[in-house]
Amino acid sequence: MTTNAQSKLAARYGAHDIAPLDAWNETLDQLLDHRSVRSFTDQPLPEGTLETLVAAAQSASTSSNLQVWSVVAVQDAGRKKRLSELAGNQAYIHQAPLFLVWLADLSRVSRIAEQQGVELEALPYLESLLLGTIDAALAAQNAVVALESLGLGSVYIGGIRNDIEGVARELGLPAQVYPVFGLCVGYPSTERPAKVKPRLPQQAVLHHETYTTAGEEQVLSEYDARLGAFYQREGMKASGWSEQVVSRLRNVSSLHGREALLGELARMGFGLR
Amino acid sequence: MTTNAQSKLAARYGAHDIAPLDAWNETLDQLLDHRSVRSFTDQPLPEGTLETLVAAAQSASTSSNLQVWSVVAVQDAGRKKRLSELAGNQAYIHQAPLFLVWLADLSRVSRIAEQQGVELEALPYLESLLLGTIDAALAAQNAVVALESLGLGSVYIGGIRNDIEGVARELGLPAQVYPVFGLCVGYPSTERPAKVKPRLPQQAVLHHETYTTAGEEQVLSEYDARLGAFYQREGMKASGWSEQVVSRLRNVSSLHGREALLGELARMGFGLR
Repeated sequence: MTTNAQSKLAARYGAHDIAPLDAWNETLDQLLDHRSVRSFTDQPLPEGTLETLVAAAQSASTSSNLQVWSVVAVQDAGRKKRLSELAGNQAYIHQAPLFLVWLADLSRVSRIAEQQGVELEALPYLESLLLGTIDAALAAQNAVVALESLGLGSVYIGGIRNDIEGVARELGLPAQVYPVFGLCVGYPSTERPAKVKPRLPQQAVLHHETYTTAGEEQVLSEYDARLGAFYQREGMKASGWSEQVVSRLRNVSSLHGREALLGELARMGFGLR
Repeated sequence: MTTNAQSKLAARYGAHDIAPLDAWNETLDQLLDHRSVRSFTDQPLPEGTLETLVAAAQSASTSSNLQVWSVVAVQDAGRKKRLSELAGNQAYIHQAPLFLVWLADLSRVSRIAEQQGVELEALPYLESLLLGTIDAALAAQNAVVALESLGLGSVYIGGIRNDIEGVARELGLPAQVYPVFGLCVGYPSTERPAKVKPRLPQQAVLHHETYTTAGEEQVLSEYDARLGAFYQREGMKASGWSEQVVSRLRNVSSLHGREALLGELARMGFGLR
């Protein structure tokens, strides 16, 4: 097991940074091995797969058991195509047999309160947006672990936030529900296998007791080199991470509509105080 | 495997709702078996555990590889105690050998841009808060799956948002960083074993093609009964879910300070446009 663990850790960091644990196991293998899949075969999912992924998702923690999330499973070709257009024309959205739209959902608790004739004073706050967003993210990540254990692959689609009102119309979402992200699910195509992408050295993200930026410049320039080397091995344009990050966040135009989220959420019934 | 799968699914829903997949596996067993652990032994974590959990966390997806999250590992008894007080006096925070504070971290990309003399125009938007929050949540959930595979237990601490400025002072957080939640990590005490809590029936959270509330009232009243029965079996006060949800969100006082998040985040350097 240890050799395998070493190779998984080396791929994840693009370097031999970390010694594997004695108690290493297959679940850790699988987690370390994650890669986003953007090319799927047309093999359909076995019956019951969706329900299994949702059971895994519902097994994640949820703040105070409020369960303020929902998910829409989209399999209809026309709807996948329209969602793909709303989310920046990513071809894999309609290629994948299953497209899951994960929702922060405060409408269910609101309907319950309405039936009881009670006002939920704690709801119209930014905190509720975070509650729903976090609940949805924890659930979705459990589904990702589950689907990878079944040999499936996936990719998150943040582009679903480019036009949340458009997505809400397409999916018939009630007020106080917003689509947090999408997730394409299917069998990975073997023609264009995805690779494990090296992440930042642990020193950059893991702090002990208090936050520190000591030594950060050197760690980041090391990562720039590692990521550049990874892209070169893959035959892609070899730019470092620092360059990518800055070019990604430099202009508002890169938000592709997400600069309007605040106003859209307000119109969709979120209090956001 | 199938008998086991059936019992896991029955525990998760408090009923025999869902037929297990033929391809059921041990990862699904583990995911379904999740429960929040609020009582820990004093057994220390094996060396290298923290680094393994962070490697699993970093293996989760991150929007555009921006990696806008960080984590502070707290093991100092005094600091755990002070954080426990800031987060609503939950004893398990200082009982657990390891307390992880997960951060949405836009400061790292900001430091890079500053060094390059570039302004990140796309940063001061609500979208950035969501990016960091989602990145942190996906990472943390991977860590939870990893730690459970190692026989450890954990509980998320949303109370860390009760006073994010206080937590930021305690951890020395720079501007544009906020604590999303905490996570207590340790070996579960066998004296008070946690139980799997039944979740909403799938019909309540899983929608096909479009969102629907048809049949919701009946599904929710079924869940009220199932959850009530669970609490009764556990010798706890047996109230249904609808009642709990409404009583949890009825008054602003239940937010314990989180009603001030918007202003606090603004003071902490988040743009939130």
